[in-house]
Amino acid sequence: MGNKKEQTREMILEASYPLFAKDGFNKITMKDICEATGLSRGGLYSHFSGTGEIFEAILSKLNEKDEMDFQKEMDEKMPAPEILERALRLMKYEMKHSEDSLSLAMYEYAGTVSGDVMGQFTEAGEKKWTDLINYGIRRKEFKRVDVHEIVSIILYAYQGVRMWSRIVSMTDSTFRAVTEHIKKQLLIENS
Amino acid sequence: MGNKKEQTREMILEASYPLFAKDGFNKITMKDICEATGLSRGGLYSHFSGTGEIFEAILSKLNEKDEMDFQKEMDEKMPAPEILERALRLMKYEMKHSEDSLSLAMYEYAGTVSGDVMGQFTEAGEKKWTDLINYGIRRKEFKRVDVHEIVSIILYAYQGVRMWSRIVSMTDSTFRAVTEHIKKQLLIENS
Repeated sequence: MGNKKEQTREMILEASYPLFAKDGFNKITMKDICEATGLSRGGLYSHFSGTGEIFEAILSKLNEKDEMDFQKEMDEKMPAPEILERALRLMKYEMKHSEDSLSLAMYEYAGTVSGDVMGQFTEAGEKKWTDLINYGIRRKEFKRVDVHEIVSIILYAYQGVRMWSRIVSMTDSTFRAVTEHIKKQLLIENS
Repeated sequence: MGNKKEQTREMILEASYPLFAKDGFNKITMKDICEATGLSRGGLYSHFSGTGEIFEAILSKLNEKDEMDFQKEMDEKMPAPEILERALRLMKYEMKHSEDSLSLAMYEYAGTVSGDVMGQFTEAGEKKWTDLINYGIRRKEFKRVDVHEIVSIILYAYQGVRMWSRIVSMTDSTFRAVTEHIKKQLLIENS
């Protein structure tokens, strides 16, 4: 961190992200990334051996950043409904801005690799939500739901909307339907 | 129906479906479809002007077939929980067999057309489920849910699973989580 090599690496990842989000994985070449970063071919290749390595580095970074978020909030004993509220606000923002989504790129990338990169990515998402829901149940702030069931609904309804909203125009009411549904499953009504 | 032209058309659609399901829309050429059908180039072009027209014909056919299903069952006054049970069984089967899914092809195709074919497709799915849920509520067999909310969850959780299961290996428990969740939302418990 802080050293030049690390900074250039970061810069490459940041410049590549919007390319993958816009055009998916397959269309993007190392040449495109040279242009976006202003690096020479040699310069770029001294950091990454190809677009696959860059894409995986972006995914790991997203994964780390993402996971830390809930964990930090739980360590600080933030009430579960508050963590959920923040997460759903972010989720709604992301659903609305599907042009920033890496879903298409992930989808294409998964077709090009034999390894289980995507499996790891999915597991991280599952773990993060499972931990949050269990935390809320332990604190008696969430209903005693079937955790695996609700986590599946959260992850896949979100993915479904993100993918689909790139192809059909969706109104705010659909994004809200998903987030409201999740809240209803988890939050204990003040009755 | 029954005439030769119509039969050849049907045969072309049936032979093309698995090609689009396997490789998506972009990779498939009219030449591939000639090979799959055994038709000459001229023969194929006398029916369809291109892969886009073939793909749209497949989608409309799926749409028609699909819509009729619930409608017929409702016309026959079949109990809503039974219609739901059948629909979810089919849904689970489809989620398990994502290799037969046109999701990837639809996704790619949507990127190539300016029209709103996908919007129509989505609307048909929304209408079908909205009608079924309202039917169940009217017959007092389903809970008085927020229909738009539940329809969104059904459609997008299903799409999310179908897309995602092409990239990560999913277990039966995830497919079951989605169908069980839908049932819990709609069915009135025998209490």
